[in-house]
Amino acid sequence: MKRFLPILTWGRAYNRAALSNDLMAALIVTIMLIPQSLAYALLAGLPAEAGLYASIVPILLYTVFGTSRVLAVGPVAVVSLMTAAALSNIVEQGTMGYGVAALSLAGLSGVMLLAMGLFRLGFVANFLSHPVIAGFITASGIIIAASQLKHILGISAEGHNLLDLVYSLVAHLNEVNWITLVIGVLATGFLFYVRKGLKPTVTRLGVNAGLAGVLVKAGPVFVVVATTLAVWLFGLADQGVKIVGEVPQSLPPFTLPSFSPALLGQLLLPAFLISIIGFVESISVAQTLAAKKRQRIDPDQELIGLGAANIGAAFTGGFPVTGGFSRSVVNFDAGAETPAAGAFTAIGLAIAALALTPLIYFLPKATLAATIIVAVLSLVDFSILRRSWAYSKADFAAVLATILVTLAMGVEAGVSAGVVLSILLHLYKSSRPHIAEVGQVPGTEHFRNILRHDVITDPHVVTLRVDESLYFANARYLEDKVQNRVAGDTAIRHVILQCSAINEIDLSALESLEAINERLREMDVKLHLSEVKGPVMDKLQAEHFLSDMTGQVFLSQYEAAQYAKADRREPADGAK
Amino acid sequence: MKRFLPILTWGRAYNRAALSNDLMAALIVTIMLIPQSLAYALLAGLPAEAGLYASIVPILLYTVFGTSRVLAVGPVAVVSLMTAAALSNIVEQGTMGYGVAALSLAGLSGVMLLAMGLFRLGFVANFLSHPVIAGFITASGIIIAASQLKHILGISAEGHNLLDLVYSLVAHLNEVNWITLVIGVLATGFLFYVRKGLKPTVTRLGVNAGLAGVLVKAGPVFVVVATTLAVWLFGLADQGVKIVGEVPQSLPPFTLPSFSPALLGQLLLPAFLISIIGFVESISVAQTLAAKKRQRIDPDQELIGLGAANIGAAFTGGFPVTGGFSRSVVNFDAGAETPAAGAFTAIGLAIAALALTPLIYFLPKATLAATIIVAVLSLVDFSILRRSWAYSKADFAAVLATILVTLAMGVEAGVSAGVVLSILLHLYKSSRPHIAEVGQVPGTEHFRNILRHDVITDPHVVTLRVDESLYFANARYLEDKVQNRVAGDTAIRHVILQCSAINEIDLSALESLEAINERLREMDVKLHLSEVKGPVMDKLQAEHFLSDMTGQVFLSQYEAAQYAKADRREPADGAK
Repeated sequence: MKRFLPILTWGRAYNRAALSNDLMAALIVTIMLIPQSLAYALLAGLPAEAGLYASIVPILLYTVFGTSRVLAVGPVAVVSLMTAAALSNIVEQGTMGYGVAALSLAGLSGVMLLAMGLFRLGFVANFLSHPVIAGFITASGIIIAASQLKHILGISAEGHNLLDLVYSLVAHLNEVNWITLVIGVLATGFLFYVRKGLKPTVTRLGVNAGLAGVLVKAGPVFVVVATTLAVWLFGLADQGVKIVGEVPQSLPPFTLPSFSPALLGQLLLPAFLISIIGFVESISVAQTLAAKKRQRIDPDQELIGLGAANIGAAFTGGFPVTGGFSRSVVNFDAGAETPAAGAFTAIGLAIAALALTPLIYFLPKATLAATIIVAVLSLVDFSILRRSWAYSKADFAAVLATILVTLAMGVEAGVSAGVVLSILLHLYKSSRPHIAEVGQVPGTEHFRNILRHDVITDPHVVTLRVDESLYFANARYLEDKVQNRVAGDTAIRHVILQCSAINEIDLSALESLEAINERLREMDVKLHLSEVKGPVMDKLQAEHFLSDMTGQVFLSQYEAAQYAKADRREPADGAK
Repeated sequence: MKRFLPILTWGRAYNRAALSNDLMAALIVTIMLIPQSLAYALLAGLPAEAGLYASIVPILLYTVFGTSRVLAVGPVAVVSLMTAAALSNIVEQGTMGYGVAALSLAGLSGVMLLAMGLFRLGFVANFLSHPVIAGFITASGIIIAASQLKHILGISAEGHNLLDLVYSLVAHLNEVNWITLVIGVLATGFLFYVRKGLKPTVTRLGVNAGLAGVLVKAGPVFVVVATTLAVWLFGLADQGVKIVGEVPQSLPPFTLPSFSPALLGQLLLPAFLISIIGFVESISVAQTLAAKKRQRIDPDQELIGLGAANIGAAFTGGFPVTGGFSRSVVNFDAGAETPAAGAFTAIGLAIAALALTPLIYFLPKATLAATIIVAVLSLVDFSILRRSWAYSKADFAAVLATILVTLAMGVEAGVSAGVVLSILLHLYKSSRPHIAEVGQVPGTEHFRNILRHDVITDPHVVTLRVDESLYFANARYLEDKVQNRVAGDTAIRHVILQCSAINEIDLSALESLEAINERLREMDVKLHLSEVKGPVMDKLQAEHFLSDMTGQVFLSQYEAAQYAKADRREPADGAK
């Protein structure tokens, strides 16, 4: 019971000190979340209020089912972009169907997350390698920023990849609304300044660090208020500045996602990708913050928490959500001690949805675009290209493919390309394992690569060390290596496979070893194994291979070499 | 030059003794190949003469480019079935287009094989695991046998998987031609007898073993002659017995495959699968026979040889070919010494195509079906199910899926399912590596699994041995393991990762190690590595990870444990 309801664990120990810390953190996060939620709803192609709704019930559900004490769940940039990309392929933006499809996407993603949690399938997310994620996030950040330029310029543009977006922006460049552009550029510039330059300045003016931090966090709220006032006072909406407009004053409504099999079928792949990307983003934030307080995160339970949150979003007018990086860090820094801080945040946002929405009627869309651009540009980080190039060309290829395909063809193609390529490269690498011919280091019982060290070898004996587990993808490679080494050198009477690095031998590899044994027998060469690990030996002993083997199994390579050296058979003079 | 034209190597040393051996082998193989070629052409849905044509020029080209001295190239059962399955989806059997599509399939497959050879991409074939191939061949054998039952029964039936075939056979069961059935059953029974019972019987009668072997090989020829005579003498063709009918008397014609992009596009996947299956079948025969004479096989050059053979088939009225198992063994046993034996076989078959085709006008199709059934039933071997079940459940799952999907949905779906499943299972296994907590064996410097051995542990020190290379699919698994082990146990001050089984650390895994290091730092726990392999150490040294690491790298696990034990810091009492 406690496994599935972590709230039972922390709820019992809840006290007054925790309450006051949680309330304070909730207030700060609420102020930060209001503009962010509205902005991400627009990014997802939905009405602004959907962003608030997506942050209320989902947070409450995560509070009950999640294991992180500080994770803040709600709409995040990359998932919102993926939502827009998925839905725009299926329904037209701005229609009733679009909102329903967003609910269905959240519901489907929620069910998938829940199922992965219950069946302990979270390992699926592991196939997204770190470099692929880094490349994907960077490319997504660029696409998101580009997609917001239309709001800054006051023009319309379409597209969910960089090529389409740039083409569309250029085509409409003659329609720029100059007042919108001024608002957008000022808002963007100010937010950049707040993020980079404000804190040092006010600190220099004698303001203490804590207050300076609050000022920085209040920056977006200030921009929202200032630009809304400007539009209202100067009647800029009549000059073509696009505004948020009427937002219903309401608690999250009860909504029903569509259960149409055709629609759900189309949403299957995007929902899966959104689930995986959302889970990976969320779990890494949760793990990082939990470590700071020596707390545990249970990945399977996290899947259940995020699944519940998304199902909640589906039934309360939201869209796909996950644990966000920046808001969780703010929550942690502000002193949140338990998930109750999330519940209080939900209450704060509910109040906003009920009472504050008339105040944002004149909020220009350009301001929201500015907050998104400033937020996502911190995601853009090309250093992964340099780092992966230096460390491993395979990782570099996967990153580059992910970035280029994402930019050129969109998020779904990009992340799929990255995953497929990194799996293929991994398989390719392990299909050509490092196989070293080794010899004895003089005066020791150690054996080292004959190409790198000055070692003693015996013309009648070949020792090969395989630096990889043997399985189907590399079994035949070993067959080729052994056959080609032995076929050309008729002095050879013994082949020793040093198995110290072999953690597993699958059935294909076992059959390859049998084939090697038989072929060596035809050549009158004995096959020996040395330094076989315990679990591998257990499996080999269950088969008849060991009894069919022409040679023996030795505990140490030294013993094997001594045995082969002592063998007095005459070398075969090259069988016909 | 010699690399690409192995004929230059063996051709120079050719002498009279080799010539006479090669001629004798060619004669035996030619006699065996005539009925087999005709039968496999019918299996592929093509006119009988296509089988002869597919054995002439392809053999000659393989003679020039191949590295095996005894491999006999031509139509084989499984590839013929795959050809029929691929073409029947696209064009109707018996039409002009069907033959042209067969040429295109051979040409496309030839180009793919050639390209794989030139770009050294033969490793792709390694992803077909032994158990998957065994399951696939078994299931294909069953489908082939079922597909020939219609000829034995003298009815018509359709389908390229077992379900369709059985359904279609049952639906037409009322149309059985009883004379055909008698011929078919007698021919099948006789061929089974020749294979299983004849040799012991004639040997008992005092016939020497060599002659007995020839009698067994002549069995199919005898059946062909006997049934043809029976049909001719008793006018059975008028009674509804289906016969081969008119076969043109001609050398292989010059033909052009279609270059239509639409057709080639549809043939792309089947051509790829045929190339891979054909290559795998061919190379394993070639390797096995080469080993008996300590000869080398170059897999990349084999791809070139088979590619040339298939391109040859495309331009001379054939269909996809590869190195066949039984004919290569016969060739070897008959004493073939060089690929010239293949060239002589080609000449023998050319004479047959020119001169002997009128003699098979009355050959009943039931006889050809009988030779196919007897040949393929030796392919059916379910022992792989028992063996894989005993050795590894993952291998068993892959075999079972391959067999069931092949039987139910056909060859392309079956082999694809097997490959995809074995890759997924491999990734799954390696994504959950064995991670053992180890302790010191008393009185030694060895460390063993604490669950299996009675070892000394220290409450302040946790040592984990990872029995797998670290890469993206298992990196986060290690993060979870470490965090969950340490978070709950506040006495821990040192974590040692024993890296003796780690052959590689990719960038994802490096970033996971960095995350582990940072999280342990937050908990005031030091991270150490022990027994890191040379190549792994080289890569780590190129990064800043080692300098950021809170602990040290030790050459031996014993040193690491001694260091940790000597550390006098007080245990943290659980950071808040």
